[in-house]
Amino acid sequence: MAPMGAFITVDIGGTQIRAAAYPESGTQALAVRKTSTRAGHEKAFDRLVELIRSVFPRDGNVLSITVATAGPVDPQAGVIASAPNIPGWDNYPLRDKLEAAFHVPTHLGNDANLAALGEWRFGAAQGHAHLLYLTISTGIGGGVIVDNRLLLGARGLAAELGHLTVLPDGPVCSCGQRGHLEAVAAGPAIAAFVRDQLALGAVSSLGGASDLSARAVGQAAKQGDPLALRALARSGEYIGMALADFLAVFNPSIVIFGGGVSFSGELLLAPVRRSLGLRVMDQAYLEGLVITTAALGDNSGLLGGLALAHTLQPQVSA
Amino acid sequence: MAPMGAFITVDIGGTQIRAAAYPESGTQALAVRKTSTRAGHEKAFDRLVELIRSVFPRDGNVLSITVATAGPVDPQAGVIASAPNIPGWDNYPLRDKLEAAFHVPTHLGNDANLAALGEWRFGAAQGHAHLLYLTISTGIGGGVIVDNRLLLGARGLAAELGHLTVLPDGPVCSCGQRGHLEAVAAGPAIAAFVRDQLALGAVSSLGGASDLSARAVGQAAKQGDPLALRALARSGEYIGMALADFLAVFNPSIVIFGGGVSFSGELLLAPVRRSLGLRVMDQAYLEGLVITTAALGDNSGLLGGLALAHTLQPQVSA
Repeated sequence: MAPMGAFITVDIGGTQIRAAAYPESGTQALAVRKTSTRAGHEKAFDRLVELIRSVFPRDGNVLSITVATAGPVDPQAGVIASAPNIPGWDNYPLRDKLEAAFHVPTHLGNDANLAALGEWRFGAAQGHAHLLYLTISTGIGGGVIVDNRLLLGARGLAAELGHLTVLPDGPVCSCGQRGHLEAVAAGPAIAAFVRDQLALGAVSSLGGASDLSARAVGQAAKQGDPLALRALARSGEYIGMALADFLAVFNPSIVIFGGGVSFSGELLLAPVRRSLGLRVMDQAYLEGLVITTAALGDNSGLLGGLALAHTLQPQVSA
Repeated sequence: MAPMGAFITVDIGGTQIRAAAYPESGTQALAVRKTSTRAGHEKAFDRLVELIRSVFPRDGNVLSITVATAGPVDPQAGVIASAPNIPGWDNYPLRDKLEAAFHVPTHLGNDANLAALGEWRFGAAQGHAHLLYLTISTGIGGGVIVDNRLLLGARGLAAELGHLTVLPDGPVCSCGQRGHLEAVAAGPAIAAFVRDQLALGAVSSLGGASDLSARAVGQAAKQGDPLALRALARSGEYIGMALADFLAVFNPSIVIFGGGVSFSGELLLAPVRRSLGLRVMDQAYLEGLVITTAALGDNSGLLGGLALAHTLQPQVSA
């Protein structure tokens, strides 16, 4: 019997970097380690190499390394366009640098794209050929599976679903444009709405909070706080508007919500469904459509990377 | 040498139905015939069969029949959901009926989808793996090529690009919803804008026209009529807004405009580019991006069907 190989996957987020080793089959990690994205004086690349080394199997038999990253990335070129909280990584050729360091085939992908791939392979979208994935937290990221394949676009910049315009001339988005879904419906917009309403005199259990986050709003909503519920419903209404557009564009059979804001479950999804039902161009798009929350949770980046590794493995070993 | 086979393609539009026979290779039709979509008392299907028979090669050696249709269609099921100006064709199993009549493998597709496929195989998008196609006439149809494959979605309802919301609570669209791209930028919206401005006292060579069409506006714009130019620029601005969204979603390397309104060329495309440049979320989407008009013109439906036939032929003959 040939010795077993391992897949190593890395998730570079805005606050932490995690690395895991997985066996050739299955989704139970052999080892997981993490480090802070922005910490110490070492260079980010050196710390990344050290982190990967810490999960390397003893026999050194690694089939591939896959890196999910929070920013824009060109998977074909293996280049990170920019990475949140790693100032030096602009047009950074991470793939070639990791391949030079480890002599192992290495692949990069956007974390939301890979999360979609993970849900498709291991999570809530198994058996669906057409998937739309939205992760709603500090920003809104997207991933789309078309006909069992990940949508990447000419330069890997496709599926930026958070940057659909839902409110022309609306609030400024993280990208600098106005009225994008992210600017009106992500965590910061939810918190800002609550702050504004409190300033206008709204009564809420959140009234005394010094550090008002979308997470706090979600918790208050679960306790039945009316203002928090309104804030989630408002976000859900905008998401439903965008979803009507996305259905006409992609006609998926399943829509999956991930990210911290999605932890509010039906408190968010019920308004999404209501808004979508009012705005969808044809009821045919809703027939058999599943709308649900992600199954992979915090491991979506790591398991998405593993899904990519599995997908590519036949070519890699050929 | 084996006898040559022919491909038959049919284009069912709102005003006419055309059928053509093509040789096994090449895009020069052996025969083309047409009939009115809504005419006479004969049933539409019988007239369609007669039309197809009129282009049948003498030796009867037909490899496949492909039908492009103006309405929504489920290509996998071979069912037309509805067809403009053919009242009886709701959930109409046209594929099975044609296969029963001709004993030839038959395929259906939406006409804008197939036009995109035609441009990709024979027209302006040759060599591009990621194409966005918009046809702008009475309505706005779309077709998308992702990674050299036509985007169809779970039930063939994808790429309805005319139904992206660009102006929430804007004018009513043909689908019944509000503010879609089609409702603010297609031919009728262009003509309506000119009519409204004339009623408000705008001076224009179009002032005396009794039957004010988008075609007449396009002709006046070519003569330099300021109101006509404004009408096209307004349409182009909305299209540019939608295009900013579509680039973030698909990251294509080429965008192609077809349909009657696109015959105005740069009078429409220059405002599109200006609007897009202001609204695109990142300049990276514009690097190397081609924005142009369709190469196949009136034959886009027929040649799109031929492109589909070519694509499917290896499977058909296997």
